[in-house]
Amino acid sequence: MQQWADRHGLALRPHAKAHKCPEIARRQLALGARGICCQKVSEALPFLDAGIRDIHISNEVVGPAKLALLAQLALRADVSVCVDNMSNLHALAAAVAQVGARITVLVEVDVGQGRCGVTDDHDVLALARAAEAMQGLRFGGLQAYHGAMQHVRSHAERAAMSAQAAIRAAGYASLLRAYGITCERITGGGTGSAEFDAASGVYTELQAGSYAFMDADYGANEWSDTLSFGTSLFLLSTVMSTPAPERVVLDAGLKSTTIECGLPRIQGRPGLVYVAANDEHGVVRVQDGAQAPALGEVLKLVVPHVDPCFNLHDTLVTYRDDTVVGLWPIAARGLSR
Amino acid sequence: MQQWADRHGLALRPHAKAHKCPEIARRQLALGARGICCQKVSEALPFLDAGIRDIHISNEVVGPAKLALLAQLALRADVSVCVDNMSNLHALAAAVAQVGARITVLVEVDVGQGRCGVTDDHDVLALARAAEAMQGLRFGGLQAYHGAMQHVRSHAERAAMSAQAAIRAAGYASLLRAYGITCERITGGGTGSAEFDAASGVYTELQAGSYAFMDADYGANEWSDTLSFGTSLFLLSTVMSTPAPERVVLDAGLKSTTIECGLPRIQGRPGLVYVAANDEHGVVRVQDGAQAPALGEVLKLVVPHVDPCFNLHDTLVTYRDDTVVGLWPIAARGLSR
Repeated sequence: MQQWADRHGLALRPHAKAHKCPEIARRQLALGARGICCQKVSEALPFLDAGIRDIHISNEVVGPAKLALLAQLALRADVSVCVDNMSNLHALAAAVAQVGARITVLVEVDVGQGRCGVTDDHDVLALARAAEAMQGLRFGGLQAYHGAMQHVRSHAERAAMSAQAAIRAAGYASLLRAYGITCERITGGGTGSAEFDAASGVYTELQAGSYAFMDADYGANEWSDTLSFGTSLFLLSTVMSTPAPERVVLDAGLKSTTIECGLPRIQGRPGLVYVAANDEHGVVRVQDGAQAPALGEVLKLVVPHVDPCFNLHDTLVTYRDDTVVGLWPIAARGLSR
Repeated sequence: MQQWADRHGLALRPHAKAHKCPEIARRQLALGARGICCQKVSEALPFLDAGIRDIHISNEVVGPAKLALLAQLALRADVSVCVDNMSNLHALAAAVAQVGARITVLVEVDVGQGRCGVTDDHDVLALARAAEAMQGLRFGGLQAYHGAMQHVRSHAERAAMSAQAAIRAAGYASLLRAYGITCERITGGGTGSAEFDAASGVYTELQAGSYAFMDADYGANEWSDTLSFGTSLFLLSTVMSTPAPERVVLDAGLKSTTIECGLPRIQGRPGLVYVAANDEHGVVRVQDGAQAPALGEVLKLVVPHVDPCFNLHDTLVTYRDDTVVGLWPIAARGLSR
């Protein structure tokens, strides 16, 4: 992904919400990443403690306690944050002024997801101007992220959606330019759309995060040869019961992986299908003709969705050639405020 | 629930997998609970450290590392564990012998769930006899838990399923009695079936856990006046974006609650419907005529499913009359091995 970003002359700012692990972020920076994204203010703290000094909070931060924490963060690092509301911008300016910090503001525009972000030209312009004018704030550009398109299965359909998003983002940028305001950064893009986002020439920065691990959900997308990634993240689970020839039970369920993107896949064992996740059990169907695993056997699961799965675990076990080489703390686990 | 168990002359052993919080377990014991259930061996550790000395691992424990930990646990407390496999029983006996511990074995029987547990009479008998015969083991009875019936909506249907499960459990117990083996304990039951399980006269012990908190999923069950519980667990979430009159965005998504049992409900705010959970966002639809919440407003969510939600958080904030009265560590969070 770094090479892809380099080739297209744009920055990579990998999303740390995917892994919540400072060691991974450090390695991404060493490979050339400009900084990181965090999704919540508290999530940024372990990365800051790990020496990372360029952090974009790719989200709105609302409420006095979180804004105060954000202002403290901005005293220690180059911090940018998204805004999509004028009263929030005023509150942000007040929080930053309180401690004498300086923060970069990106106006979040909704480029098709229908979640946060402004869509009205006047709002975009008003927020950008106000950010420029306020003490302690600096207008940095636009965030134009479209999460929903990341998991659209068809390659062609993702390409079309990315093009639409890029057109909208470019439109907002040119509107601002018409009023003499430059968008230094236009940030967005995820693993599913990075190929198109980068090629669009509109974005200056990619926020992809899952590419380093991949999951069953991204695995179900249709990829081209241009930009695709293998799975590096596995959840080990032990066969804890073999009650029937066609059914075995694993010790990993809803407390080991979330399932809102479907159920885990069992790696390298055709005919074994994870069919139900309970709190701490996974029920596996052994299809006709498949080799049933033995009691105590350890299976490798591909998790359905990287981000909330990392958030369930405290430590990442890294390995090379079947030998464990590291235990990396998932230090931002649970920091969702 | 304690009163209900007392009235029916059976023990309550609340399931700690629901809350993972030693302070809650301590209070349950103070109210008369006999001990606690844990679902995983590692999960038991903080409860042991909190002084709880009667712990049932309501699950099979497979693999040398976990069995060794279990044996250590059995040196420090009265511990029972489920078994549904002869080779696992041998491995358990070996692990216990290794450290000179003593552990109670409950044979798990499948009373209709189709997950773990034996169903064959010969297997039940063989496991019970072997447990009686092995050094360091003690046969304690049966676990007859039916998780799937807990969330069957119809009160009458749950009653019928509980009756079926109780009949099966009673059948296994009388089989054992016919061979001169007494089932000191028959343990099972959850919040959804406790009313019927207790009244059946078959169980000696209830394992319910969610009753102390309740969730949106249990809230959707049909309850009688005989035994029902209110919601005490809420997730506070801030309105972080108000992009459109019909849509606001909350700062609590998949990293704050799981959604395999549906989406959170918004407490006390009719017309506000939580319609989509992203990693860190919750999208709320404001129905026609409903009052839209303001940016920064804090809403109370009823989580869909207590157990995996507790597992996402490190601290439980307790309150009385809108005043915070305690911060209780959810000390067993993440201990799923």
